[in-house]
Amino acid sequence: MSLPIFPFTLEGTDGQARAGRLETPHGTALTPCFMPVGTKGTVKTMTPERLCVAGAQIILANTYHLALRPGAEVVAALGGLHRFMGWQGPILTDSGGFQVFSLLDTARVTDEGVSFRSIYDGSHQFFSPERSMEVQHSLGADIVMCFDECAPATATATQLEQAVERTGRWAARCREAHRRADGRGVDGPQMLLGIVQGGVDPALRRRSLEGLLALDFPGYAIGGLSVGEERSRMLHITSLCTGSLPAHRVRYFMGIGDPAGILEVISRGVDLFDCVLPTRTARMGTAWTARGRVNLRNAAHATSSEPLEEGCPCTACRTFSRGALRHFVMQKEILGLALLTEHNLTFLGRLVAGARTAILNGSFAAYKGEWTTAW
Amino acid sequence: MSLPIFPFTLEGTDGQARAGRLETPHGTALTPCFMPVGTKGTVKTMTPERLCVAGAQIILANTYHLALRPGAEVVAALGGLHRFMGWQGPILTDSGGFQVFSLLDTARVTDEGVSFRSIYDGSHQFFSPERSMEVQHSLGADIVMCFDECAPATATATQLEQAVERTGRWAARCREAHRRADGRGVDGPQMLLGIVQGGVDPALRRRSLEGLLALDFPGYAIGGLSVGEERSRMLHITSLCTGSLPAHRVRYFMGIGDPAGILEVISRGVDLFDCVLPTRTARMGTAWTARGRVNLRNAAHATSSEPLEEGCPCTACRTFSRGALRHFVMQKEILGLALLTEHNLTFLGRLVAGARTAILNGSFAAYKGEWTTAW
Repeated sequence: MSLPIFPFTLEGTDGQARAGRLETPHGTALTPCFMPVGTKGTVKTMTPERLCVAGAQIILANTYHLALRPGAEVVAALGGLHRFMGWQGPILTDSGGFQVFSLLDTARVTDEGVSFRSIYDGSHQFFSPERSMEVQHSLGADIVMCFDECAPATATATQLEQAVERTGRWAARCREAHRRADGRGVDGPQMLLGIVQGGVDPALRRRSLEGLLALDFPGYAIGGLSVGEERSRMLHITSLCTGSLPAHRVRYFMGIGDPAGILEVISRGVDLFDCVLPTRTARMGTAWTARGRVNLRNAAHATSSEPLEEGCPCTACRTFSRGALRHFVMQKEILGLALLTEHNLTFLGRLVAGARTAILNGSFAAYKGEWTTAW
Repeated sequence: MSLPIFPFTLEGTDGQARAGRLETPHGTALTPCFMPVGTKGTVKTMTPERLCVAGAQIILANTYHLALRPGAEVVAALGGLHRFMGWQGPILTDSGGFQVFSLLDTARVTDEGVSFRSIYDGSHQFFSPERSMEVQHSLGADIVMCFDECAPATATATQLEQAVERTGRWAARCREAHRRADGRGVDGPQMLLGIVQGGVDPALRRRSLEGLLALDFPGYAIGGLSVGEERSRMLHITSLCTGSLPAHRVRYFMGIGDPAGILEVISRGVDLFDCVLPTRTARMGTAWTARGRVNLRNAAHATSSEPLEEGCPCTACRTFSRGALRHFVMQKEILGLALLTEHNLTFLGRLVAGARTAILNGSFAAYKGEWTTAW
């Protein structure tokens, strides 16, 4: 039997850029679409209501963290992630692979899977393609991801090749595990995406792609980029991948969140993307605006009665002066973290919605050209 | 000339309990009224919008903290506290006295005022009745307070008596300083309240009261209680004070926030009260409900799909299970702090609104009797 695939309609293209519509059992997302990251079940500081107003459509949650705290079985007992997070829209869970490989020096990898110690209590843990799928079934997101091996940026060519081969074998096992579960989690059918790996090596990327395409996934992610490589190489590999992916399957670039980078991957035919950058940057006291970054720790803002960004509909811009926001940031007031988070998400939501409109109007190149500020 | 006095209308009484209406230049507060504390210009975690939905009417802000960070002049330059806090309703500032006397072992008190060191940078600071009024004029709250000497709970009878005498002299100086400013701050007329001191000594309380009444303040506060004394003595002194205060002036009990205590002071004729207790308790992971305290750190809640409190309209109760709230609390997620804060303020808002309705219906004793849980 084939895996669940949610309707994905291309509504327009402009060059490689695409405007689409992904219909999940928990609602429709208009693409391109930035997905805020709700690491442990919350997008830090944000209520679901404010997320919705900020324009969020799909929320990402981290399998690694939720599997350890409170535990996938606890989330399942509480009805799955939608109820747990209070988010009735679409949710995507990652596979846990990225955290397993990046958070832990102690991970031991075999073909079977990865042994590691929990960052919470040091306990022994084991993740495999089958275990990752089991956890993701218990969490019950709409979109789930194959468990992949993320080679470090320092990997040798041989290590990278081995990781690509293993990721391919693991993708087949994830697909099979998902098929055995009838493609369903605790909260309904789940769409499983394959992940293309291969670093910045075009030949490896092609090999990874071909292996995944042979498995015929409902959608595809581009992983292992935006991890320190030169941006030009990242974009080259992105074009290579999107150029070989089927047009009518959704495409997800994993881990990009800076405004300029988002516009670049959109222009190369990516539909979905996520990153902690906008929310983490906000908690550091920096806001994004159409005129560039605003670091509210800068003393110049202390007596500024201007809003953070003229015309922005977020709570921070509607309600507070830069001077007040700076005070909240300097005093580490929780409200300051929340206000800047909402602002950055609102900013990205508007940036990406504008890109979608431009694609539908055939003016994406001009739109992208307007955003010349370096963030 | 007389000091500004805002219309305060008694709409009903039930025994000593009062239901009133205080009309300030920034809107009307229905009393009895609990005032959440926005120490440094925010009620921690809460946007003005959520505060409003939670039923907050008047917000309190701390003169001590705002005078030091960002500085009263900065707040004035930004248009005053209403704009700074994004709160268009009534605001009350304390005088700074309580913090000066309680946060600092190094305070040196003379009749002129108090020298102390800033908790922010150790700098030398000086507060006096005149300086407190000057700061409160710059902050621009609707209701401002006399600078008083808060004797510690360990004070001897002589020390307490000296503090009462000095508080009386300082009240006269505050009144005069306010009169010289035409009773106005940066954002319009301000109502100045006198503060009755005297610990739990009835004779000293009477002396303090008489001195203040002779100065004819637009309203009166009861200070120096709920600081560790036995509750029965606190309530006895409260009755003594309210029994001698003019019926048509507003009465403010400083620093009480537990549900049972609030009902007790309401029953003794208090109109306004404030405390950090509901918000601080929330940030410790404990919620108040009609059935008592709920400590979400308790493992019993881990898999509970029940709401925190059935029928509560707050975001936490409308959106999340106890299990999810417990996870947020255990993981120190900011959203958890915000949700419990909103819940506790909503709970208190409903408790006090219920008290008001009961007073107007002549059923306050029965209403108070229903709240038998020990919080």
